[in-house]
Amino acid sequence: MIELDRSRIIPFLDANARQVAAPLLESAQRQVLEGNGPGAEMLGWRKLALSPDEALLTTIEQTAKEIRERAEVLICIGIGGSYLGAEAVIKAASPYFGRTGPEVIFAGHHLSPAYHKELLESLKGKSVYVNVISKSGSTLEPALAFRLIRQFMEENFEDADRRIIATTGPTGGRLNPLADAKGYRRFIIPGDVGGRFSVLTPVGLLPIAVAGVDIRALVAGAQKMMTDLESFEDNPALDYAADRYVFHEAGFTTEVFAVMEPKLAPIGAWWQQLFGESEGKDGKGLFPSVVQYTTDLHSLGQYVQDGRRNLLETFLTVEEGVSLPIPSEQNDVDGLNDLAGKEYAFVNQSAYAGTAEAHLEGNVPSWTITLPCADAESVGALIAFYQHAVAVSGYMLGVNPFDQPGVEAYKQKMYRLLGR
Amino acid sequence: MIELDRSRIIPFLDANARQVAAPLLESAQRQVLEGNGPGAEMLGWRKLALSPDEALLTTIEQTAKEIRERAEVLICIGIGGSYLGAEAVIKAASPYFGRTGPEVIFAGHHLSPAYHKELLESLKGKSVYVNVISKSGSTLEPALAFRLIRQFMEENFEDADRRIIATTGPTGGRLNPLADAKGYRRFIIPGDVGGRFSVLTPVGLLPIAVAGVDIRALVAGAQKMMTDLESFEDNPALDYAADRYVFHEAGFTTEVFAVMEPKLAPIGAWWQQLFGESEGKDGKGLFPSVVQYTTDLHSLGQYVQDGRRNLLETFLTVEEGVSLPIPSEQNDVDGLNDLAGKEYAFVNQSAYAGTAEAHLEGNVPSWTITLPCADAESVGALIAFYQHAVAVSGYMLGVNPFDQPGVEAYKQKMYRLLGR
Repeated sequence: MIELDRSRIIPFLDANARQVAAPLLESAQRQVLEGNGPGAEMLGWRKLALSPDEALLTTIEQTAKEIRERAEVLICIGIGGSYLGAEAVIKAASPYFGRTGPEVIFAGHHLSPAYHKELLESLKGKSVYVNVISKSGSTLEPALAFRLIRQFMEENFEDADRRIIATTGPTGGRLNPLADAKGYRRFIIPGDVGGRFSVLTPVGLLPIAVAGVDIRALVAGAQKMMTDLESFEDNPALDYAADRYVFHEAGFTTEVFAVMEPKLAPIGAWWQQLFGESEGKDGKGLFPSVVQYTTDLHSLGQYVQDGRRNLLETFLTVEEGVSLPIPSEQNDVDGLNDLAGKEYAFVNQSAYAGTAEAHLEGNVPSWTITLPCADAESVGALIAFYQHAVAVSGYMLGVNPFDQPGVEAYKQKMYRLLGR
Repeated sequence: MIELDRSRIIPFLDANARQVAAPLLESAQRQVLEGNGPGAEMLGWRKLALSPDEALLTTIEQTAKEIRERAEVLICIGIGGSYLGAEAVIKAASPYFGRTGPEVIFAGHHLSPAYHKELLESLKGKSVYVNVISKSGSTLEPALAFRLIRQFMEENFEDADRRIIATTGPTGGRLNPLADAKGYRRFIIPGDVGGRFSVLTPVGLLPIAVAGVDIRALVAGAQKMMTDLESFEDNPALDYAADRYVFHEAGFTTEVFAVMEPKLAPIGAWWQQLFGESEGKDGKGLFPSVVQYTTDLHSLGQYVQDGRRNLLETFLTVEEGVSLPIPSEQNDVDGLNDLAGKEYAFVNQSAYAGTAEAHLEGNVPSWTITLPCADAESVGALIAFYQHAVAVSGYMLGVNPFDQPGVEAYKQKMYRLLGR
């Protein structure tokens, strides 16, 4: 379901170093499959992808149906892994303009006073539902936003408690007692799934279903891919992880994730958290950066082509596009009639192929990942691909891919400044 | 109008190397002021900022007024510098929700067939104006989009030619003859101003004015700052450029541009083009990357704190925020009553200060740029600051900061694949 093209990697890859890394790769794959590496208690995302909970999917679909029927807006309160996955899938699998169903607006994913104040003002007179998503319930950004929005809901809706749905850890924390007291409906974030691996739990699935995306197809795509990735041979996630490892050890510093379809850029933001948090520790990791082509070929493109040579690149392309033939024009005043009758998608595909070739000549090793189309099933497969790849990659680097100790650093300083 | 805090730079800065670079800095500043460095024929953006064309501003305001009165949507067709500056200023100086006036939608800034097809479908029944922005008129992305949208306008509006406004080079190219033939209104992009330096020409000013932002204040902020930057002493742009140069030579690879207010993130995208295209050549330059805090503290934050140590960081903060006191709650079920009565902005400010301190301890040198507020005047000053800084920085690196030879590479390959 996912094709990984390494033809522009091979010419730059130190074949000997790749050979030397083979036992490390095999051992990393074993650690993931057998669950005996660092952080192995957080491998719940694999089980989940391999054996989806059909009853849970049905409950999520029923809840989403109610929200789609009754709400004009769903506010999703959450930060990091509690919103990046949902946003990525919703954007990728929806049209750019004219999606039907409730608007999905994120909140509590930062601390801007202007954003939250203006958001509440904009909600007046609308039918609003809220999904508050936090494993502990105590992360400051979503907790503060939820206090504001909860009060707004209670002031504006008699059935506020029916309109608020909590997605939180199995027990304890701040949200479980509140949900008990108010009678909120509740979805559980499994204890063995970390934030950045949680898109296929209710964290992602409820907002995604409310947006009208087929969560069964999403889960099916992930299941099929996760099963394929158990192999030790012909495994694109292992190829990708091992290639990256060799380049990392050779001093490459940065990976650019390049999408040819702008609505796939939020998948880049999700990938950025997945790889940044899983690998970026103990002075290691490739800095993950996202670009949107051809837009950013007129921006960062100059740097990628000619700047300091420490870059890797992944192109994410989609095989099947929308048909939009380029119209002809009588006087050809803009000089484009040579392209008339050709598909816009063909021009975009040529831009991709031309860029890949130019960056090859500019000495940027690049992979291409091709999805059959930008639908839920393909995106599900891509999610499984990257989740598995980053686990293997983290183990190869010798880090625990499932913790994020550096995220605590700013929190502690902030709490002290807040007098907490 | 802009405060540059270097207190978290100084501890990491090799004072001797900075001393050694002083003559190079002075010479770079002279090249910019005297117009005798490489690419000096493209210094028009300085003249423009120092001496705004009042008559032109009046014409732009009048045109914008007509569009605001008559249009529900303004489509701005342009790529790279022909849209990044407008988007940055509009987002920064507008509310998050509830801006009045026509919607401003960008097009022709990539080659997605789905985007352009769905955009046209979404426009049906709306009052549309179009601003096509291209110096040559022949850049493929905007030229293709303009062919589509021009046909849409001619099919849907009897006064289509009145509703299309061309912003293009002084003479020649593809848009001037078309504007002549159709009678489009026209604004001129000065020949001595390159795309990424063009936000204060009609390229940026017309869309910005249509969005209801005060372009007089924008231009006034830039004028004041550009005048201040002629100094050789106490000049924040020179400090920033020289610091970066020293770190670049010491092997730092990446600069992270971090905003504490999400609507400032598009300024980061504009900065990314400005620095990426101006510096990223001949194997040189710092890779420019944009993050939005606290959002990305739960994503890339882990890497910035603990990953490979080759990062610089700039925090962009705003002094004056919107008032949003944190409400109190009777039972304190979420445990936030210790913050009740405090301002949301105070929490955001504490997050910034805590993060700056944490990254200092994590060995990431960082500047802070503080704007008095997120209004047009401050943003104008910031634009002038970065435009001047990048010119100085480019000269220090020994590159021509005003060309972009690497952008041609993908175009040539793409044209060949298109059979052009």
